[in-house]
Amino acid sequence: MINIVVKLDAENLSTPEKIGEMAKRLIEEKKFGRNVVAVVPTTDLLNGNVQQLTYSLSDTPSERELDVLNSMNAHLASSLLSIAIQKRGFRAVSLAGWQLGIQTTGKVNGNARIEEINGDVIIEHFKKGAIVVVAGGQGVDENNNITLLGNGGVDTTAVAIAASINASRVEIYTDRDGVYTADPEIVTKARKLKDITYDEMLELAYLGSKIVHPRAVELAKKFEMPIVVRSSTENVRGTLIKGEIEMEKNLIVRGVAYETDIIRFTVGYESFENSSLSNLFNTLAMHNVNVDIIVQAVIDEVKPTISFSIEKEGLAKAVKVLEDNKESLGFSFANFEVGLAKVSIVGSGMVSNPGVAARMFDRLRKENILVKMVSTSEIKVSVVVPQDDMVRAANALHDEFNLADELV
Amino acid sequence: MINIVVKLDAENLSTPEKIGEMAKRLIEEKKFGRNVVAVVPTTDLLNGNVQQLTYSLSDTPSERELDVLNSMNAHLASSLLSIAIQKRGFRAVSLAGWQLGIQTTGKVNGNARIEEINGDVIIEHFKKGAIVVVAGGQGVDENNNITLLGNGGVDTTAVAIAASINASRVEIYTDRDGVYTADPEIVTKARKLKDITYDEMLELAYLGSKIVHPRAVELAKKFEMPIVVRSSTENVRGTLIKGEIEMEKNLIVRGVAYETDIIRFTVGYESFENSSLSNLFNTLAMHNVNVDIIVQAVIDEVKPTISFSIEKEGLAKAVKVLEDNKESLGFSFANFEVGLAKVSIVGSGMVSNPGVAARMFDRLRKENILVKMVSTSEIKVSVVVPQDDMVRAANALHDEFNLADELV
Repeated sequence: MINIVVKLDAENLSTPEKIGEMAKRLIEEKKFGRNVVAVVPTTDLLNGNVQQLTYSLSDTPSERELDVLNSMNAHLASSLLSIAIQKRGFRAVSLAGWQLGIQTTGKVNGNARIEEINGDVIIEHFKKGAIVVVAGGQGVDENNNITLLGNGGVDTTAVAIAASINASRVEIYTDRDGVYTADPEIVTKARKLKDITYDEMLELAYLGSKIVHPRAVELAKKFEMPIVVRSSTENVRGTLIKGEIEMEKNLIVRGVAYETDIIRFTVGYESFENSSLSNLFNTLAMHNVNVDIIVQAVIDEVKPTISFSIEKEGLAKAVKVLEDNKESLGFSFANFEVGLAKVSIVGSGMVSNPGVAARMFDRLRKENILVKMVSTSEIKVSVVVPQDDMVRAANALHDEFNLADELV
Repeated sequence: MINIVVKLDAENLSTPEKIGEMAKRLIEEKKFGRNVVAVVPTTDLLNGNVQQLTYSLSDTPSERELDVLNSMNAHLASSLLSIAIQKRGFRAVSLAGWQLGIQTTGKVNGNARIEEINGDVIIEHFKKGAIVVVAGGQGVDENNNITLLGNGGVDTTAVAIAASINASRVEIYTDRDGVYTADPEIVTKARKLKDITYDEMLELAYLGSKIVHPRAVELAKKFEMPIVVRSSTENVRGTLIKGEIEMEKNLIVRGVAYETDIIRFTVGYESFENSSLSNLFNTLAMHNVNVDIIVQAVIDEVKPTISFSIEKEGLAKAVKVLEDNKESLGFSFANFEVGLAKVSIVGSGMVSNPGVAARMFDRLRKENILVKMVSTSEIKVSVVVPQDDMVRAANALHDEFNLADELV
C-alpha cells in the first residue's frame, strides 16, 4: 500500500458543504488503496470571530498568544474534516502539530522552522485504517510552546510529513489545475506543463507563482519527493514536479513569470570611496526591507549609483531607513520610481544555451519595451519594465520561446 | 512567595469586558506578591459556532473529535485572558492540558482521570514573573490523544495543579460568595459558613450543591489542600474548606441540602426467594441507570418489595430496563412515583451525636411532612418527601438545628 500526502486548499474547506465534498474526494483516494494524509491550512471558519475577540482585548497581543490562537483554526478544520469523513463510514483522525511531534525552532524572521517530525504516529493510524488529517503549518518548540511555520508552512508540513512516512508523492490541491508556462490570465497562449524540475519550479515560485511555496519545493528537492500540482475540484491530470525531466532536449525556456508593483530605488554617491554595498544592504536588512534585484552602476569614475528593487509593501519603510541613516550611509541623493513590473523567463536548459538573455532583450527591444533593470541566474533572466508594458512583454516572450508548442 | 491556584467561573469570561475585569482581579493577586495560576473552564465564547459547524457535518461525531473540538474552547479562553493580562502590563502565558503534561487515562464512564501532572512547567513560568492561565478540564492519554476530564474536571484540574506546585490554597471563584448552611433561595435564614470540612463539603456536593465538584473535594482531601470558595466579582471573605475545623464543639448539623425531581420506583416479588438485590441493581447499572437511595422492605414474610430512587433523567431508561428484564429479574410488579424531592442534613458532628435522625423525623412529623424514604451515612441523613413540601422541610430543618446562629 502506498502512502500519499495531500495538501488542501483553504477555499475548499470554507463551508460545511465544501468540507463534505473534500471528505468524499479523500475517501476516493483511500478506496484506490492508498494510505492518505491530508494537510489542512488555516481557513476562514471562525477565524474572523477569533481575530475580533483578540483585538477587542489588545491592539498588540503577544506573538506567543497570537500563535496559540492562530494554530487553533487549522486544528479546528482538521477535526471537522475528520468528522465529515467518519460520517461517510471511513475512519479518520485529526492531529495538531504537537500530536505529530513536529519539533521546530523558535521564531527566525517571524517563522519557525521544522527540525524533526515523527512519522510513526501516522503509521500507527494507517495500521488502523484511518485517513490522517493534519493541521498544517504548526509545531512546538523545545519548551512545548506552539509555533507557526509562517509563509509556505502548510506546503512545507506536507512535504516534511511525506518524507517522514516515505510517501510516494505529495499532491498540492489548488484552484489551478497545474503549473502553466505563464499566468493564463495575462498570457493568452499559456499552456499547462506536464512536468517541471524542482529548480525551475523554485525560480517560478520565487518569481511570484503562488502555487507551491519555495520552502516546500526546496525541501522536496532535498528529499527527492515528487510533488503533483492538481485541481482541488476536478479530477484532471496536473503537473509533476521532480528532479529531472526526460525529453528536455530542445527545451530552453519553460515558463514566463511576472510580478507587479515593483519599486526601483536609486542611491547616488559623491565618490566611489563613500559607497558601500554592504553598509547599505545590511542597514536595509536590519530593518526588514526585502531587496530583490541589485544593480551597481558606475556612471563615471567619480559619481557611482546603486539601484535596487523592492516590493510595494516595503516603500514607506525603505524611505524611512534611508532618511534615518543618510549620514552613516554617506550617499548624496536617493530617489525611487514606481509603476514598474518584473518579467522573468525560467528554464534549466538555459545553462547550456548561451544567448537566451540576448534573445530576450532583442525581442523586448523589437516590442519597444524599455528594460530598467536586469538580473540573471543560471536558469532564469528577470527584467524590470514599465508596468503598462508587462502583459505585452509576457506574451511576447511566451511567443519568442515557443512555449505554446505541445513539445515543451 | 506563595503559590495560589484560582478556578474561574465561565460567566466571568463570557465577554471581552468581563475578561478584562478578570485580568484586573488576577493582577491584584499578583501585586499582593503571590504566584498565580488561573484555571479556565469552557465558556460560551464561540462555543455555539463550533457546535453548529460540527453538527452540520454529522449527527454523531466521534467522541475523539468531540473532545478535540471541546478542548479548544478553554484553550481559546485561556489565551484571550493572557492577552488581557499582558495588555495591562503584566506577564501571562496560556497553557493547554498537554502543555502542562496532564497525563490522563482514556475514558472511564465518559470521563478521563488525571494520572500525572508536571508542576515544573508552571514553576518555570513563575520564575519569569508570569501569571499562568491554564485551560482546565483537559489532558492527554498515553497516545497523545486529547482527553476531557468531564464533570467537575475544571475544579479537579485546579486542585491537581495546586498539589503539583505545592500551592497554599485553591480559590474557587463562583457566583455565590461562599458555602451556605442551605440554598438562600429557598431557605430564608440561610447563612454563609466560615469554614467546613472536606467530608461535610463532599456530602453537600453529592447532595446537589453545585459549588465545588465532589471529585475536586476528594482530591483536595487526599492532598490536604485548602479550598476557598469566594465571589468572582466581589472581594469578600468566602468559605474555607479544610481537614478539621476548630471550635466545632457544639456543632452537629452544618448544612441543609435539597434535590428536586426525585422518582421512587417500587418493585414487588411474590416470594423472598425470587428477590435479588444484586440482580436488580447490576442490571440497572449495566444500563447506566444511576440509583441513589435503596430501601428493602419486607412487608410480610412472603411478599417483599424493594424501593429505590433515581433522578428524573433516568425515568424512561429505568422503565425500559425493568420491562425488558422482567422475566430474568423475577419480580411480580413494578411502579413508580413522581413529584418527590430529597432533603438532607449534613454535619460531621453527627457521628458522635446519636439521635440526630430522630430529631429530624420528629420535626418533620410536627410539620406534617410525609417521609417516603430514608438514607443515612455517618455524617448525613437524607429523606425523600413530596416535592410540594420540600421548601417547608428545608426551612424547618434549618431552624431545628439552629443553623442561622452565628456560632455555627
